[in-house]
Amino acid sequence: MAYKSINTSSAVEKQIKDDDSYVDYFYDAPGALPGTLDLEPDAAPPEIVLIDYCETAATRSQLTNPQEAAAYLDTASVSWVDMLGLGNKETWRQMGEVFNLHLMTQEDVVNVPQRPKVVDYEEHILIIAWMVMIKPNSDKFHKEQVSFILGKHYLLTVQEEPDYDCFAPVRDRIRKGQGIIRKHGADYLAYTLLDSIIDGFFPVLELYGERIEELEDEVVVRPTRKTLEKIYKIRRELLTLRRAIWPQRDAINVLIRDSNDLISPEVRIYLRDCYDHTVQVMDMVETYRELSSGLMDVYLSSVGNKMNEIMKLLTVISSIFIPLTFVAGIYGMNFNTEKSPFNMPELNWYFGYPLCVTLMGTIASGLVYFFWRRGWFENFSTVKDDSEK
Amino acid sequence: MAYKSINTSSAVEKQIKDDDSYVDYFYDAPGALPGTLDLEPDAAPPEIVLIDYCETAATRSQLTNPQEAAAYLDTASVSWVDMLGLGNKETWRQMGEVFNLHLMTQEDVVNVPQRPKVVDYEEHILIIAWMVMIKPNSDKFHKEQVSFILGKHYLLTVQEEPDYDCFAPVRDRIRKGQGIIRKHGADYLAYTLLDSIIDGFFPVLELYGERIEELEDEVVVRPTRKTLEKIYKIRRELLTLRRAIWPQRDAINVLIRDSNDLISPEVRIYLRDCYDHTVQVMDMVETYRELSSGLMDVYLSSVGNKMNEIMKLLTVISSIFIPLTFVAGIYGMNFNTEKSPFNMPELNWYFGYPLCVTLMGTIASGLVYFFWRRGWFENFSTVKDDSEK
Amino acid sequence: MAYKSINTSSAVEKQIKDDDSYVDYFYDAPGALPGTLDLEPDAAPPEIVLIDYCETAATRSQLTNPQEAAAYLDTASVSWVDMLGLGNKETWRQMGEVFNLHLMTQEDVVNVPQRPKVVDYEEHILIIAWMVMIKPNSDKFHKEQVSFILGKHYLLTVQEEPDYDCFAPVRDRIRKGQGIIRKHGADYLAYTLLDSIIDGFFPVLELYGERIEELEDEVVVRPTRKTLEKIYKIRRELLTLRRAIWPQRDAINVLIRDSNDLISPEVRIYLRDCYDHTVQVMDMVETYRELSSGLMDVYLSSVGNKMNEIMKLLTVISSIFIPLTFVAGIYGMNFNTEKSPFNMPELNWYFGYPLCVTLMGTIASGLVYFFWRRGWFENFSTVKDDSEK
Amino acid sequence: MAYKSINTSSAVEKQIKDDDSYVDYFYDAPGALPGTLDLEPDAAPPEIVLIDYCETAATRSQLTNPQEAAAYLDTASVSWVDMLGLGNKETWRQMGEVFNLHLMTQEDVVNVPQRPKVVDYEEHILIIAWMVMIKPNSDKFHKEQVSFILGKHYLLTVQEEPDYDCFAPVRDRIRKGQGIIRKHGADYLAYTLLDSIIDGFFPVLELYGERIEELEDEVVVRPTRKTLEKIYKIRRELLTLRRAIWPQRDAINVLIRDSNDLISPEVRIYLRDCYDHTVQVMDMVETYRELSSGLMDVYLSSVGNKMNEIMKLLTVISSIFIPLTFVAGIYGMNFNTEKSPFNMPELNWYFGYPLCVTLMGTIASGLVYFFWRRGWFENFSTVKDDSEK
Amino acid sequence: MAYKSINTSSAVEKQIKDDDSYVDYFYDAPGALPGTLDLEPDAAPPEIVLIDYCETAATRSQLTNPQEAAAYLDTASVSWVDMLGLGNKETWRQMGEVFNLHLMTQEDVVNVPQRPKVVDYEEHILIIAWMVMIKPNSDKFHKEQVSFILGKHYLLTVQEEPDYDCFAPVRDRIRKGQGIIRKHGADYLAYTLLDSIIDGFFPVLELYGERIEELEDEVVVRPTRKTLEKIYKIRRELLTLRRAIWPQRDAINVLIRDSNDLISPEVRIYLRDCYDHTVQVMDMVETYRELSSGLMDVYLSSVGNKMNEIMKLLTVISSIFIPLTFVAGIYGMNFNTEKSPFNMPELNWYFGYPLCVTLMGTIASGLVYFFWRRGWFENFSTVKDDSEK
Repeated sequence: MAYKSINTSSAVEKQIKDDDSYVDYFYDAPGALPGTLDLEPDAAPPEIVLIDYCETAATRSQLTNPQEAAAYLDTASVSWVDMLGLGNKETWRQMGEVFNLHLMTQEDVVNVPQRPKVVDYEEHILIIAWMVMIKPNSDKFHKEQVSFILGKHYLLTVQEEPDYDCFAPVRDRIRKGQGIIRKHGADYLAYTLLDSIIDGFFPVLELYGERIEELEDEVVVRPTRKTLEKIYKIRRELLTLRRAIWPQRDAINVLIRDSNDLISPEVRIYLRDCYDHTVQVMDMVETYRELSSGLMDVYLSSVGNKMNEIMKLLTVISSIFIPLTFVAGIYGMNFNTEKSPFNMPELNWYFGYPLCVTLMGTIASGLVYFFWRRGWFENFSTVKDDSEK
Repeated sequence: MAYKSINTSSAVEKQIKDDDSYVDYFYDAPGALPGTLDLEPDAAPPEIVLIDYCETAATRSQLTNPQEAAAYLDTASVSWVDMLGLGNKETWRQMGEVFNLHLMTQEDVVNVPQRPKVVDYEEHILIIAWMVMIKPNSDKFHKEQVSFILGKHYLLTVQEEPDYDCFAPVRDRIRKGQGIIRKHGADYLAYTLLDSIIDGFFPVLELYGERIEELEDEVVVRPTRKTLEKIYKIRRELLTLRRAIWPQRDAINVLIRDSNDLISPEVRIYLRDCYDHTVQVMDMVETYRELSSGLMDVYLSSVGNKMNEIMKLLTVISSIFIPLTFVAGIYGMNFNTEKSPFNMPELNWYFGYPLCVTLMGTIASGLVYFFWRRGWFENFSTVKDDSEK
Repeated sequence: MAYKSINTSSAVEKQIKDDDSYVDYFYDAPGALPGTLDLEPDAAPPEIVLIDYCETAATRSQLTNPQEAAAYLDTASVSWVDMLGLGNKETWRQMGEVFNLHLMTQEDVVNVPQRPKVVDYEEHILIIAWMVMIKPNSDKFHKEQVSFILGKHYLLTVQEEPDYDCFAPVRDRIRKGQGIIRKHGADYLAYTLLDSIIDGFFPVLELYGERIEELEDEVVVRPTRKTLEKIYKIRRELLTLRRAIWPQRDAINVLIRDSNDLISPEVRIYLRDCYDHTVQVMDMVETYRELSSGLMDVYLSSVGNKMNEIMKLLTVISSIFIPLTFVAGIYGMNFNTEKSPFNMPELNWYFGYPLCVTLMGTIASGLVYFFWRRGWFENFSTVKDDSEK
Repeated sequence: MAYKSINTSSAVEKQIKDDDSYVDYFYDAPGALPGTLDLEPDAAPPEIVLIDYCETAATRSQLTNPQEAAAYLDTASVSWVDMLGLGNKETWRQMGEVFNLHLMTQEDVVNVPQRPKVVDYEEHILIIAWMVMIKPNSDKFHKEQVSFILGKHYLLTVQEEPDYDCFAPVRDRIRKGQGIIRKHGADYLAYTLLDSIIDGFFPVLELYGERIEELEDEVVVRPTRKTLEKIYKIRRELLTLRRAIWPQRDAINVLIRDSNDLISPEVRIYLRDCYDHTVQVMDMVETYRELSSGLMDVYLSSVGNKMNEIMKLLTVISSIFIPLTFVAGIYGMNFNTEKSPFNMPELNWYFGYPLCVTLMGTIASGLVYFFWRRGWFENFSTVKDDSEK
Repeated sequence: MAYKSINTSSAVEKQIKDDDSYVDYFYDAPGALPGTLDLEPDAAPPEIVLIDYCETAATRSQLTNPQEAAAYLDTASVSWVDMLGLGNKETWRQMGEVFNLHLMTQEDVVNVPQRPKVVDYEEHILIIAWMVMIKPNSDKFHKEQVSFILGKHYLLTVQEEPDYDCFAPVRDRIRKGQGIIRKHGADYLAYTLLDSIIDGFFPVLELYGERIEELEDEVVVRPTRKTLEKIYKIRRELLTLRRAIWPQRDAINVLIRDSNDLISPEVRIYLRDCYDHTVQVMDMVETYRELSSGLMDVYLSSVGNKMNEIMKLLTVISSIFIPLTFVAGIYGMNFNTEKSPFNMPELNWYFGYPLCVTLMGTIASGLVYFFWRRGWFENFSTVKDDSEK
């Protein structure tokens, strides 16, 4: 028995359902039999598509079980066995036989997600990669594991989810014989698919670039609680992207330097290009991480600024009216003016009230002038300009 | 004489009793005899369980003292000597003889906790590892040191605490002959146990993942002082996990690269898988650390936001009622209206009071409109929405 | 088909149009044919300038198509083919033939921007560099990619934008035979141009140095919302500069260490100097980044300081007038003095009012003295001094 | 002439006197003669203790001058020359002769503090280490430099301060012949002393662990200005410890790897253990540094929280009483009720006053209910619970 | 033509004039001729001092032009040519000839400041170093570039500014034949001067240590706006020191490892000591940087603390007097007591006023007790204690 970490907490699961941004790795129950595959025994068998091509022709067929693939593997033509979904235990018993897979390899492929890596088994090479893409008609991103088994004349790819992939243009090219793809071997095919996966990070990053752009305005002009949540969410998701791309770079680097001759020197040149793209993705992820952490600082400052403006308003109003109210309070005292000429004689003056009002007006004007000199009112208009912008 | 750091301060001890999260290393009193074992001479002898198995059979026996193990060590069958608890000095005198242990090794095994590491003594290999697990029926995590002495045909494991371990499934597998465990040697057994230990980190991490998830909501919607304490506590405990997993990775790496032929090439392949899991644990620890440090920023901002809302309320109420009170104060002045027509004639007007009330109403409406235009009231309702969510 | 990341969002595009500070890398549509050039088939052909020189003479000619360059490439004289603008697909079909360019090279040169790098193709070396410069009559900076193809006797440079470059002094020197440039080969020419590009970073950095200098005053004396935006903007733009200069350093380092004999030992000495300049640029970028992040801290503190001063003003005024108003309120109560000698007899005292005013004066003076002792008024004058400075 | 950095400023000196936590390195006056020893010519000669031992016997003698040691150095027995205090120039003239010390070595030993390091002079090895310990009956820590000169059959140790050291247990062991110390050479003695020094860091660190523990409570429940000072002080002192332990690790590593055969392979095994302890010390220092920097964040948040509570109190009281005072102000206006039926007829109503009081009560209850609904009062009681805890 | 970055902005220049703390590197105008020296053609020739010494004698002479030095360079005696000031173009034409300097070397020496580095030209070694010193009678620090050309029997030093250097003690030692300087070659002389330069960093650092010490008090007890500026200034200046010392360490390391036999093995031992000092300087710079960044945190907290105290005062005064004023307001209402027995009968009670005053006293005492219980007054006295300290 094995657990998938995402199953334990419904809260976590909801999160993942939501946006696929919270990635934990698969792990065995402590003490579980190494090599246990986390599959339902009665799950439906996966769809398996075989594309077999050489320079002059390409055929596509749907396989009903892995054993049908056996005949193609050692022929000179390139056989791309594309498995959509993880299948069931029976599938893997057969896969193990046909492709001669170590138990450890099967575990890495089936118990998803694993950290991207490359393992060289001499006879074939295992490549674990993560594919991200923006879901059609949505601004959420989808993440799944794609595993490659690269042999001499074949490439096996296993996709976690059958619904999404970014390989359609490659299939097209094989079918139509576009470019040089049909002139090269399985290693070139593996490169092409890896390259598609890396290129798939860019549109996702672009989305984050735009979101950060929007937040840059929002955070200065109208920072709200929602802004804060958005910044935090972007930081968390970039953390996931980062965790996906760093080991991918290492994996591609291993491929380039690996001494196994399953990969030809020419394809290594192409892989170097793919490596450069991976570095560019990392560059952008790091840049966005820095930007979003800068946004948090700006947010904090904006909150402080806003408080200053609230306090200024309170202070202006209080400072003007509290003294005036005191003056009015004075003249509301009930000292008996008849008992003594010292007891508030001003109440009986002919110009008592006008003088009092004048006094109040003078105090108010003085305070207003005081605040105006210090530039407190300018600020208020600035605020207005900003919000009307 | 030797001290255990956790004994000095009762506060520290309480902390450890609580949640095992505050780990200091064992240290000798400065100048103490190297090789001094920190054991009570009169402590009870530990429970020692011997599991001896080959491909066809497995026996389990309880040993009363270490010397009984001597007979099994050089036989071709694999002997797993599992010592539960650290025992007393007499135990270790015998252990030293039976297993031919260097004084330094004994110290590392007995004076817990030591930093995870691997030391190769040619004839056997010492592996120090840290095991964490969630205590049953609790959300606290338990941490203890497990030491391995891997010889040609035997494996000695010493567990700090007899009560907890995660080796039950392995014992089961040996008894039932499941998997390939009985076909391999002591090195495979050591790998299996190490793998169980690493896999034991995942459920603990998952717990932290969930706590962080909960805090993410709490920190934005209802940040209280308790939230702050929780964030700090998570950061502190992740620091402990990090201190446990980093050296463990180095240790496993040493095992993989070590030239000692006590570890067969095939088991090295398995260890590589174990290494990958360790890296995954590290990845998650680092991710959670970043998330929790992001939470602290969010908390700070939330505190500021909350203050802004408190201040807005104060400002709205003060700004509306202070001017009105001033107006009321004016008409409460006692100027003698009989002495002069200038002295508050409005008090004697026919519509004096209605006009005054109208004036007040106008002022109040004007201010309410002013605040409404600036969006201060929207915010209040936002707050309400949030808290009702 | 290929996308340029800057095309997707009009917001992003506007940003770039504005100040060229938001650099994303070019990327292929996932799954696109490797080697697809992102060019309009019907774009105008680029202007191509050929400068051919040896120690004794230099000629300059305008080419109408790349094939005209073919005759010059293998002659002993140095041929600098300078392509201004990226041209169209037809141009590149011819370029590929004439200069024998790998499809991957063409992609790197045309699909801008790429990360700066050096790729050695034996027969020629590809150098990708980023050029920044301050636009004339403006304080914005312009950024474009310049690609070099360095062969035995020729240098091909491809500039993204025809309008700006910093090579005019080099052209002058070739024409006039100044310095040693006409005595050396194409490798020295490549060095000279690279050096111009690196030196072009300094004036841009100087601009940032000045801006930070100005902000240092502003942030302490008159921090406004605009200040915050400026600091954030500088941080973002320095991030871009940093992303430009780090890989450039690596690229130059590769050039120095590369074993290809297209670069002579003497030119390697010059490149080492160029490398030193690159490190100086990096030093300054990092310094400015630290300074600007320090400015953010200062800004936050200044906001807090300002609030303290606002609060002090409010507190002083409230603390003085609220108690006084209370006293006035006392004597405004309407207890019937005739019913009892205990009911506010002071209203009928001969010196009632003067005593009351004295009381108020005493309270006010006491509070003023209290605040003065605590140094609250000093602060106000400090503020004044600052703002008059 | 040479300066000791601690002499220049009396403030610094006071600091050091206080808690030994502010460590600057020794430095020569710029341009001073290299090899100048910073000693008073007329200082008292140091106490020099010679412990000479072999497997069967150990003698201890007090030397009056270094030359008496000369006779012991080349004998087969191990001679430990322990110099307490730095002595005067005459001492060092003799030391230089007897132990054949390079001028640079003398400078490193005498001009304290130097950065911990190991220098191999073939004939002997110089080891500079820092010893920290808690002063008896105090919670301050003491720091001094201990220098080792390890020769074939002798070990010279020079202690900066005669009053403190942690070598007493080692002396005891030599005298009593405990353990294996008398069976080994001078290299084992050097290891034993180094190990004592490293173990001496643990009790100091433990003290910091406890202080941080205490601050964790204080910072949440009762954060005051003193708390802030304590956190800063801990951070500063941990910085010093860190500066002491990092180079010590490097130094021990050099010892282990050094090819000089003054150190036997067996002692290298012991040194590896000592190295592990050093790494444990570093681990703890880094952990405490992270914790204390987390405390600073918590402190900042607590200050904000406290302000929120103060503001809430002010807001609750102001919001309730300001409107009520306004109502009272209304009915304190002096409109002439006789002039018109519109002029405050309520003053003459039979139930005027009761109605007014009811109105006030309603307003007050409404506001109290409003604040209660928003949970403002819960918070107050929380505060109380906390402070009574 | 070449620009010096400090010339462009008068603000920057003023800064530099002020305290020499704002260091930008020299850069050529983009595209300028490599090897252009930034010198006025009509500047005065520099003062050139030649000190020629061997073990038995030392002579000092003033040279009128570089060519006079030529005769000394190849003699067995050590010739130290010390050039004070950068001179003019004519000087350098001659220097180039006499010392056989590469154009690149001349540029590095003349176009100051350059990053510290070491370049080995076989026949001589170029060393660029930065010298800092505290200006006499001032607390500002002076920074200039000193360049060394180390040949077989000569050392050329070029100082940017003739007015300051720290070489006087070395000159003295040569003249008097103190120490071993006259027994060694030019390499030892170079070491001695480099060592003087490194030792010159310590007094500057000590100054910063003291300033930080002072700020530690200031920031907790009396944080003002000036404190903030001081902290920021220290951070900025430490950044400069750091930029000076890091490459210097690398340069010295290169010298130690360089295979050129211009540096004898014995001098390499001395250089190792010099390297250790450089590391100590770096240690202190990093420590001070951490401390000053900790100070910024403390400052922020102090600002928050101060606000809390201001708010407490406001809250105490408001909370006490606002309710009392309300009570007074009640009894100031003009309800007609004659119309109804319910209309404020208390105004006519015999003990009405005393009861009212008692009520007010009770409310006030209750509130004072409430605040006292929460410890608000303790805090005020704490503040007082602090400021009287």
